[in-house]
Amino acid sequence: MAFGWGAVMMKLGLSRLEASDHASVVSINIFVTLICACIVIGHLLEENRWMNESITALIIGLCTGFIIRLATRGKNNSHIMVFSEDLFFIYVLPPIIFNAGFQVKKKQFFRNFITIMLFGAVGTLISFVIISLGAVEFFRKMDIGALEVGDYLAIGAIFSATDSVCTLQVLNQDETPLLYSLVFGEGVVNDATSVVLFNALQNFDLVHVDATVLLKFVANFFYLFASSTLLGALTGLLSAYIIKKLYFGRHSTDREVALMILMAYLSYMLAELLNLSGILTVFFCGIVMSHYTWHNVTESSRITTKHAFATLSFIAEVFLFLYVGTDALDIEKWKFVSDSPGKSLGVSSILLGLVLVGRAAFVFPLSFISNLFKKSQNDKITFKQQVIIWWAGLMRGAVSIALAYNQFTRSGHTQQRGNAFMITSTITVVLFSTMVFGLMTKPLIYFLLPPNSKHLTRSLSVSSEPSSPKSFLSPLLGNGQGSELEAAQCIPRPTNLRMLLTTPSRSVHHYWRKFDDAFMRPMFGGRGFVPFVPGSPVERSVPEWE
Amino acid sequence: MAFGWGAVMMKLGLSRLEASDHASVVSINIFVTLICACIVIGHLLEENRWMNESITALIIGLCTGFIIRLATRGKNNSHIMVFSEDLFFIYVLPPIIFNAGFQVKKKQFFRNFITIMLFGAVGTLISFVIISLGAVEFFRKMDIGALEVGDYLAIGAIFSATDSVCTLQVLNQDETPLLYSLVFGEGVVNDATSVVLFNALQNFDLVHVDATVLLKFVANFFYLFASSTLLGALTGLLSAYIIKKLYFGRHSTDREVALMILMAYLSYMLAELLNLSGILTVFFCGIVMSHYTWHNVTESSRITTKHAFATLSFIAEVFLFLYVGTDALDIEKWKFVSDSPGKSLGVSSILLGLVLVGRAAFVFPLSFISNLFKKSQNDKITFKQQVIIWWAGLMRGAVSIALAYNQFTRSGHTQQRGNAFMITSTITVVLFSTMVFGLMTKPLIYFLLPPNSKHLTRSLSVSSEPSSPKSFLSPLLGNGQGSELEAAQCIPRPTNLRMLLTTPSRSVHHYWRKFDDAFMRPMFGGRGFVPFVPGSPVERSVPEWE
Repeated sequence: MAFGWGAVMMKLGLSRLEASDHASVVSINIFVTLICACIVIGHLLEENRWMNESITALIIGLCTGFIIRLATRGKNNSHIMVFSEDLFFIYVLPPIIFNAGFQVKKKQFFRNFITIMLFGAVGTLISFVIISLGAVEFFRKMDIGALEVGDYLAIGAIFSATDSVCTLQVLNQDETPLLYSLVFGEGVVNDATSVVLFNALQNFDLVHVDATVLLKFVANFFYLFASSTLLGALTGLLSAYIIKKLYFGRHSTDREVALMILMAYLSYMLAELLNLSGILTVFFCGIVMSHYTWHNVTESSRITTKHAFATLSFIAEVFLFLYVGTDALDIEKWKFVSDSPGKSLGVSSILLGLVLVGRAAFVFPLSFISNLFKKSQNDKITFKQQVIIWWAGLMRGAVSIALAYNQFTRSGHTQQRGNAFMITSTITVVLFSTMVFGLMTKPLIYFLLPPNSKHLTRSLSVSSEPSSPKSFLSPLLGNGQGSELEAAQCIPRPTNLRMLLTTPSRSVHHYWRKFDDAFMRPMFGGRGFVPFVPGSPVERSVPEWE
Repeated sequence: MAFGWGAVMMKLGLSRLEASDHASVVSINIFVTLICACIVIGHLLEENRWMNESITALIIGLCTGFIIRLATRGKNNSHIMVFSEDLFFIYVLPPIIFNAGFQVKKKQFFRNFITIMLFGAVGTLISFVIISLGAVEFFRKMDIGALEVGDYLAIGAIFSATDSVCTLQVLNQDETPLLYSLVFGEGVVNDATSVVLFNALQNFDLVHVDATVLLKFVANFFYLFASSTLLGALTGLLSAYIIKKLYFGRHSTDREVALMILMAYLSYMLAELLNLSGILTVFFCGIVMSHYTWHNVTESSRITTKHAFATLSFIAEVFLFLYVGTDALDIEKWKFVSDSPGKSLGVSSILLGLVLVGRAAFVFPLSFISNLFKKSQNDKITFKQQVIIWWAGLMRGAVSIALAYNQFTRSGHTQQRGNAFMITSTITVVLFSTMVFGLMTKPLIYFLLPPNSKHLTRSLSVSSEPSSPKSFLSPLLGNGQGSELEAAQCIPRPTNLRMLLTTPSRSVHHYWRKFDDAFMRPMFGGRGFVPFVPGSPVERSVPEWE
């Protein structure tokens, strides 16, 4: 029992929950209360340009961690403190990434697919190499305990992982759709790269690196990317097929929503079971579900899923930042570094610098390469946009912390000096980058792309995404939080021909659309292909249809 | 690793999730897949009068448990098998009970409040005494290992706990509202009684039972009931107040839904922390939230919460029955009884008989007492209805299993012969009562109260609950699953006066309604008291309102 009043409760006698469970009851109470506080405070601060919910949660988490430290006087037995990878990867991350896939503007995403892949795969590798080499260069000279080759490579992998959750917080899909899709998409693809990297680091012989290993690595990446994507798409299609076939005529909202939630989660867990990238899988599952499944369900299921997924993702995000904040002050980690605070600060600064350089080293060259392949001036990524892409992807978050724990601790505890340095530095970098870089992203966007010149950013989306005809759902769905699920699918078919004539590069999309209309939608449903009048309330539970 | 293919996965190298987490990934995959299968099969069997989702889940769970047994050849290290009280009481039960409170017909519930209290408190005690005495009488003569006085009393408590979750499955709120509210309400109040009983059994000196102990017990019950109810109501009112005050003019669906979910859960966890009855608390929190909070949120939040709560509850129920089914075949428990199957069968039969007698001993006398206070012939509980109340409450479910594990095992394992007998008998009684009694409840209702004479059952509800004026929401909300959230609040105010004149006993409700209109609703919102036109889409995120 970590608390004074916890001990009092113990004396009163625990009826059904045993003593071991009492600690989890206490921590659940604390976290649920804190999440409620974050939501209310975040709402009150909504008008504030600088703050957002994630930073509020981080600060509240830090304060809570500090208070708990004081209350327990540095005892190590408080359960709520230890960061659990399990909790993070199994319960918190899936809803966030799934919702991002579910609400993403599909057209924008697939238009920039090549650029996203470049950033996510090649860019991550460049950043990884630079940070690893830099760490070797700097840390060898400093006396921070024994680090092996594998540790330096792990540092590279940990700090080249863009945090997609942070990106969701600072970039707005409606205001800067191109930047959002690039930076967020990069973060998703990045996950596959980091899984491949981690597997490679653990399995391959690191001393003998030659062309075969490199080739094996590239092949591994494409295999992982393709299989993860395929698994997500297949699970999504299966859910669409089941709901379309089984529920014809007698829809049940609860069952539909339950099936969608469970199958989305299943796609993630299957990917984890098969050692694929769960993030990629659940992201593509979200995309497929919003394209097919979502149109097969009843009107109330659509509203429910749209908001329920967003709410789950929102709660998970707030919890995550709270958790990172509460965990950051765990005294055990800071014990080793407290005798040399200057060195600890040095390590953190070097890592931050490497992150800055490593990201700059791929964003600008790869943007240049990407621009070479764009014909229209409008499609190119301007320099100002490149600066924002560079800046908005600097944040390191819970993924970095989880990877660091995996590499440098045994079940959340560390005893070795070098490892303790790495853990505290990771936490410092995460806190600093999230707070400082995160706080400055919005003002930077306003400064570089002021609202009146926003057409620079929007040009891409405006040309391809006409203001969607307001359906009767709009008053229900349009809650001002952006991300109209429909926007990407609203182009009436006749414009496809014109698009083909004006911009030949879009013909891939045209053929996909034709294929989609001819084969996929009749099979799996989708906008206009469900057996009811589109846009009308399909739910009447009329028995004569059966 | 329990599985052959699990071992294969191990060799492939686990990237981020460590070996200890792998088992949980496997079991999550199995359970999510099984829940999906249950939903689909349950949907296909929906037309079947006998089957329902819970029995489907129970059977699928049993089969899965059997297959896993075969695959692991009886090894005990398979993690998915051990029933976890923690999981049950902290994660599975709260959404089920909260949703029941959220969707309950409030008027029906409060009308029968005295009868429900009689059944839930006095009835449970009667049943407890009879089953305990019966167990002492029968088991002392049989050679089933050492059982102490506390064990016999625990048997009484375990088998007098009506399972509210089972009740939800076999009784339909729309078809038999009186029976539903009586049996389900009894199950909720029952929980408070069983908590008090368990506390009493663990704290009091059992050898010296005198009037003081009894008085203390009664006082304890009323304290626990009042404080649990109050905590639930206060949490609900707080959520209504926060949403009404803070979100005026700029509603955010995700935040509202998140706040409602989190505060409902908080009420349950707070109750557990304070050693109150979490079930009672979260039930009343659900009632208050549906009366006040639900009317303060946006239209899409209303649809989302209504269906999201129902879906969560639905998933939790299916999971629960699957879990009980999978757990039932755990080999360790059956080891001790396999050498004397006849005796095990005898113990189970005796317990089943005691359950039947114990329930009959309070349903019929208490119904008689309850009828004495009813003036109108329509309000009385007919004999046929009494039979159904008796029968529908016979099922013993996960609550009984959880209590049995708590009493007779140490962290899910048992080594002692008498304890093993009790665990296996509990499982047998639960399986038998859920399958046989559960399967026969619906046919029994059809036989005793055939649809054309349903007015006997409905009379109470028809008189007080006029067909609610179909709001514009009806096509969205009316998904044929019954439980119109609104029904209990739809009576136009003018009828209150007429009600007061015709049935004086309803004047309590009249004064409550006046108080509600004068003080509560202006403060906490509610139907017609939110600052927008009632029934219109309130969500427009109009900035000029701020």
